[in-house]
Amino acid sequence: MAQVIADRRDVDFVLHEQFKVSELSKHEQFAEFNKKTVDLIVNEARNLAVKELLPTQKIGDRVGARFAAGKVTLPPEFHKAWQLFCEGEWLAMPEKLEYGGQGMPRLLSMAANDYLVGANFSFMLYAGLTHGAGKVIEAFGNEEQKRLFLKNIFTGKWTGTMLLTEPEAGSDVGALNCSAKKNDDGTYSITGTKIFISGGEHDLAENIIHPVLARIEGAAPGTRGISLFLVPKYRVNPDGSLGEFNDVVCTGIEEKMGIHGNGTCSLTMGGKGNCIGTLLGEENKGMRAMFLAMNEARLHVGLEGFACATSAYLYALNYARERVQGKHLLQGKDAPSVPIIQHPDIRRILLTMKSYVEGMRSLLYYVAYQEDCASITDDAAAKARHHRLIDILIPVAKGFVTDRSFELCSQGLQVYGGYGYISEYPMEQLLRDSRITMIYEGTNGIQAMDLLGRKLSMDDGQLYLDLVAEIQATIDRAGQVDGLAECTARVAAALAKLDQVAGHIGKAARSEKILGAYAFAHPFLDVFGDVIVAWMLLWRAAIAAPLAAKQSKDTAFYKGQVKSAEFFTGAILPVTLGKMEAILAGNEAAVEIEDASFGG
Amino acid sequence: MAQVIADRRDVDFVLHEQFKVSELSKHEQFAEFNKKTVDLIVNEARNLAVKELLPTQKIGDRVGARFAAGKVTLPPEFHKAWQLFCEGEWLAMPEKLEYGGQGMPRLLSMAANDYLVGANFSFMLYAGLTHGAGKVIEAFGNEEQKRLFLKNIFTGKWTGTMLLTEPEAGSDVGALNCSAKKNDDGTYSITGTKIFISGGEHDLAENIIHPVLARIEGAAPGTRGISLFLVPKYRVNPDGSLGEFNDVVCTGIEEKMGIHGNGTCSLTMGGKGNCIGTLLGEENKGMRAMFLAMNEARLHVGLEGFACATSAYLYALNYARERVQGKHLLQGKDAPSVPIIQHPDIRRILLTMKSYVEGMRSLLYYVAYQEDCASITDDAAAKARHHRLIDILIPVAKGFVTDRSFELCSQGLQVYGGYGYISEYPMEQLLRDSRITMIYEGTNGIQAMDLLGRKLSMDDGQLYLDLVAEIQATIDRAGQVDGLAECTARVAAALAKLDQVAGHIGKAARSEKILGAYAFAHPFLDVFGDVIVAWMLLWRAAIAAPLAAKQSKDTAFYKGQVKSAEFFTGAILPVTLGKMEAILAGNEAAVEIEDASFGG
Repeated sequence: MAQVIADRRDVDFVLHEQFKVSELSKHEQFAEFNKKTVDLIVNEARNLAVKELLPTQKIGDRVGARFAAGKVTLPPEFHKAWQLFCEGEWLAMPEKLEYGGQGMPRLLSMAANDYLVGANFSFMLYAGLTHGAGKVIEAFGNEEQKRLFLKNIFTGKWTGTMLLTEPEAGSDVGALNCSAKKNDDGTYSITGTKIFISGGEHDLAENIIHPVLARIEGAAPGTRGISLFLVPKYRVNPDGSLGEFNDVVCTGIEEKMGIHGNGTCSLTMGGKGNCIGTLLGEENKGMRAMFLAMNEARLHVGLEGFACATSAYLYALNYARERVQGKHLLQGKDAPSVPIIQHPDIRRILLTMKSYVEGMRSLLYYVAYQEDCASITDDAAAKARHHRLIDILIPVAKGFVTDRSFELCSQGLQVYGGYGYISEYPMEQLLRDSRITMIYEGTNGIQAMDLLGRKLSMDDGQLYLDLVAEIQATIDRAGQVDGLAECTARVAAALAKLDQVAGHIGKAARSEKILGAYAFAHPFLDVFGDVIVAWMLLWRAAIAAPLAAKQSKDTAFYKGQVKSAEFFTGAILPVTLGKMEAILAGNEAAVEIEDASFGG
Repeated sequence: MAQVIADRRDVDFVLHEQFKVSELSKHEQFAEFNKKTVDLIVNEARNLAVKELLPTQKIGDRVGARFAAGKVTLPPEFHKAWQLFCEGEWLAMPEKLEYGGQGMPRLLSMAANDYLVGANFSFMLYAGLTHGAGKVIEAFGNEEQKRLFLKNIFTGKWTGTMLLTEPEAGSDVGALNCSAKKNDDGTYSITGTKIFISGGEHDLAENIIHPVLARIEGAAPGTRGISLFLVPKYRVNPDGSLGEFNDVVCTGIEEKMGIHGNGTCSLTMGGKGNCIGTLLGEENKGMRAMFLAMNEARLHVGLEGFACATSAYLYALNYARERVQGKHLLQGKDAPSVPIIQHPDIRRILLTMKSYVEGMRSLLYYVAYQEDCASITDDAAAKARHHRLIDILIPVAKGFVTDRSFELCSQGLQVYGGYGYISEYPMEQLLRDSRITMIYEGTNGIQAMDLLGRKLSMDDGQLYLDLVAEIQATIDRAGQVDGLAECTARVAAALAKLDQVAGHIGKAARSEKILGAYAFAHPFLDVFGDVIVAWMLLWRAAIAAPLAAKQSKDTAFYKGQVKSAEFFTGAILPVTLGKMEAILAGNEAAVEIEDASFGG
C-alpha cells in the first residue's frame, strides 16, 4: 500500500542522517536508544498509526463526538484505539520512567508522533492535551499532586485538558473572570465558565484532570492576578481512588469546521458551589506556569498542522501518479493520455508541497532535538543556548508551519480536482482539520507578535544571533559541497536580507513606529519561516548531494533532496525576498487608515 | 443592521463613478436604465438578498440537498426563495425581453448578482446554471428549440444544467464516453453517465433541461468528435406541455465540503434505452459551443468566489469593530481593552481584504461592462476590442479571483479567532463554500494554462496589448492627480515588469522550454491578476483622491479608496515583483526532478 502519512525514507533521513539520533545514545540518559531500537520504535508507531488509528480518522469526522445530557460520547472505534494506544505506552514517550514515561529522546517521540498524529489528529489531541496536563503537574505540582495524578495521566488512565479560554478572554488571557476562593483546608472553591475546551468531557477515561486558570478573590486584575489550579472531574481520594463528582459540568460542545472527533466543550465549574481545586505552583503565578507549558503545546500544534500537510502531500502524490488525464505537452493530441504527474503545473504543486513538508519536518524535529541536546549537557551555557534556539523557533514551528500547512492542504486538494472537494476522498477533511491549528494555542497573529515583540529582542537579541550562527554554519558546510554553489549563495543572500529586515523591523518595534512595525509582524514571521525552511533544505542537500552521485537504492531519494533545495531557493526564495522588500518599504496605510474608511 | 454581503457605497462607486453605468442609457438598447432605475434595481436586489435569500444560506448548509430513491429534495425555504426570485424576474436580467429577460446592462446585473449570489451562492447556482443553459440554447438552438425551451428557462419555470464531466473525463473533456445514436426522426438516443452535475436533480422546478456533451457513434476521438445535445428530464411535447420521463436518472449526490444546498448529482442517461436528445448546433461542434458558453460561466464562478470574499470582509470588519480584546499597543497594561480593529495585525488583514475585494469587484464589473460596450457599438473594430479584453480577463476573473477569494475567506475567519472555526458563525461556511470555485468550470490550473497558452499569444498578442493600453491609460490619468504620484509610479513599474515577464514566459511557452514555462503558468496568473487589481485600485484612487480632499458624508469612503491603493501598491506589489523575479529566474527543478524522486 502506498504511504499516506509520512514518507518513511524522509523520516529516517531526518532522524539518522540529519540529526543522527542514535548518537544521543552515547549519553547515559538515552543509552538504550541505539539505531536498532529507534527503528523498532518508529516501526511500531507506524504500525499502530496505519493499522489502528488511520481507520478511525474518517469515523471521527463523520460520527464525531456527540453531546447529550452533559455527556460526550465518542465512537467505539476511538475507545479501542485509545486502549491500544495506552497499552503501547505511547502517551508520554519522552517522560520519566517513574511516572509511566519511556524516557525516549524527544527527537524520536517526534518521529513517532509524526505517524500517530498524522493518522488521526483529533484523536491524538486527547493524548497531546493529556501529556501537556501531566507536564504542568510535573513542573508545578507538589509531591502529593504528583503522587495522586501523574502516573494515571501519563499512562492514559485519566486524561487531561487545559482550561484557559472564556467568552471574553481568548487571546487576552488576562481578561478572565473565573474565580477561586480559598477554603479553610487549603483547597479552593472554583467558580466560572470556560469555553473551547478540547477534550473537556468524553467517555474515553474514568477521570479528566483540568489545569484551570482562575483569579483568587481579591487578586490583581490582568495577568498578574491569575493562578493555576488542578481541578479533576471526579475528586481523588488520598489513596488514589475516585471520589465524588466535582461539579464540573459540560453544558455543550461546539459544531465546528473540522476535528469533529474531538469534542470542544463548554464547562461550568462550581455551578452548585461544589467544585474544589488545589493550587498548582504559587498564587498569582499562573501565567508563568502557562508560558512554561506553552512551548511544548505550541510545538505539538505545529506538528498537528504539519501532519495534515505531509499526509496531503502523499495523497496528492499518489493520486497524481494514478490519475490519467490529458496529453503530455510535448506530445500530440492523439497521443495516449498520461498520469497528471506529467503536467508541469501538477509537478510545481507537488514540488512546492514536497519542499515545504521536508523543510518543516526538519524544523519540527530540530526543535525536539534541541530539547534532547539541552537535557544531556551539563554545560550551563550550552543548555541555555539550546533553550534560546527553542524559544525563537517556537512561534515559527507553530505559526509559520500551520499557516503553510493549511495552504499545502489546499494545494493537495487542488491536485484531486473535483474529487478533492468530495468527502469520499481524504483531502477536504485534511483541509478542514488543519484550519484550527492556525487558531488555537495562540492564534498565528499572536505567534507573529511573540516573534517580533518578545523573541527577537529577548536577551539583547541573543536568540536571534544564535539562530543566525546555526544557519551560517550550514551555509559554510554547504559551500564545500559540489553542485550546491548556487543554492548556497541563494540561502546566504536570503539570510543577509533577513538580517537587514530583522534589524529594521526590530528597531521600529521599539520606537514610535511600533504600530507600523506590528502591522508587518505576520509578514515578518512568513519570511523568517521561509529562510528557516531554506536553511533546512540546504542542510539536507549538503548531506544528500554527495550520495546522489552514487548509484544505490536511495539515489532517487537523494536527488530529490537536491531538487527540493534547488526549487525552494530558486522558485520560492525570490518571492520571499519580495516579501522582505515589502517589510522594508514599511507602508503605513494599515495604521493610517481611519476606522470609518474601512466602510461597511 | 450592519452590511454583510456587499458594501453598498462601494457597489455604487463602481457602478456610477468608475464605470458610469447610466451613460449606457444614452444608447437605445439600455434607454430605460437611467440612474434612478439602476438604483431602484440594486435596492430591490439587495432587499431580496438580505431579507429572503440570506436566511436560507445556513439552512442550505445544514439541511442541504437530500437524496432518496432517485429524487433530490431541497429545504422548503429554498422553494419559497425560488418562487420569489422567479417572480421578481431576476434569472435572466440581461437577456432579451422576448424570452423573459429584462434587457438590462450586464454591468447592472453584475451588481444585482453581487448581492444575490452573496446571500446564498449554492441557491444561486441553480439560477446561474439555468441562465447558462438558456444562453447555450439561445446561441445554438434552432427556432423550435428556442420556442419550446427558452422562455420557460429564462423565467425559472424550468431549470438548466451542463452535463460535461464523466469519471474519466474531468479537465480532459475530450476523453468523454457518453454516446449518441441518431434515430430515424432526427433525434438522438443518448447513453452514458455524467458526474459532478450541479443542480442535476431537484424538486424546485417541474422540468430540468440538460445540455449534454456526447459523442455520436463513429465520430472522431478527442474533442473533435464531441457534439452538444439538449436532453430534458421530461420530454416536451410540440405544444410545450410536459411529456414522458426521459430516462435521465439521478443515482446519487456527493457528500462534499461545502455548497450543501446544491445537489452534486450523478446522472445516468438511457439506462433503459429511452433517453432522447436533440442536437444543439452542428454535429461534432460541441466544444465550440462549450467555449462560447464558457466565458459567462467562468465569470459567474469568479463572482461566486468573490461573493464569499466580500461577505467575509464585511463580517470580519463588523466583528473587529465589536470584539473587545487586548490592550492598545500604545497604552499601558492597565488601560481598558479595545476593539480588535485597533490592533495593527487585524488592520493589516482588514486592509488586505478590503483592497483585494475592491480591486476584484472592479475587475468583475469591468468584464461585464465590456460586454455592454461591445453590444452597443456598431463599430466592428471596437466590438472586437471589447471582446479581446473580455477574453484575456476571463481566466483572471475566474482563476485569480477565486484563488484570492479563498485566501481572503481564510483571513476573515482568522479575525474571528476560535469563533471563526465554529459553525454558529458564518466564516467557516464561507471558506468551505468558496473552495469549490477554484475547481469547477475549469480548475484554476486550467485557467492559468488558458492565459499563458491561449490568451497571451492569441491574435498575435493583441489581447494582451489592448489590456496594457487600458492599464497605461489609467496610469496616465492617475499621474495627473495630486497625491497619487507614488502609487502611480509603483503601478507603472509593476506593469513594466509584467511586460518583461509576459515576454519572457510567452516566448518560453512557444519554445523547447515549454515545460518550464508551463510550470510557472499559475504563478504568472497570480502576478497578472495582482497587476490588474493594482490597476483597478489606481483607477479608483484617481477618482477618489480629489473628492477625499473635500468634506462630505463620503469623505471617509474616498479616503479609504486612496488608502487601498497606497496599501496594495506599497505593501502587496513588492511581493508581486518578487513573484515576477521567480518567474524570470525560470527554475526548472519541477520539470527536471525524476518521478521517483518525489518519494512516497
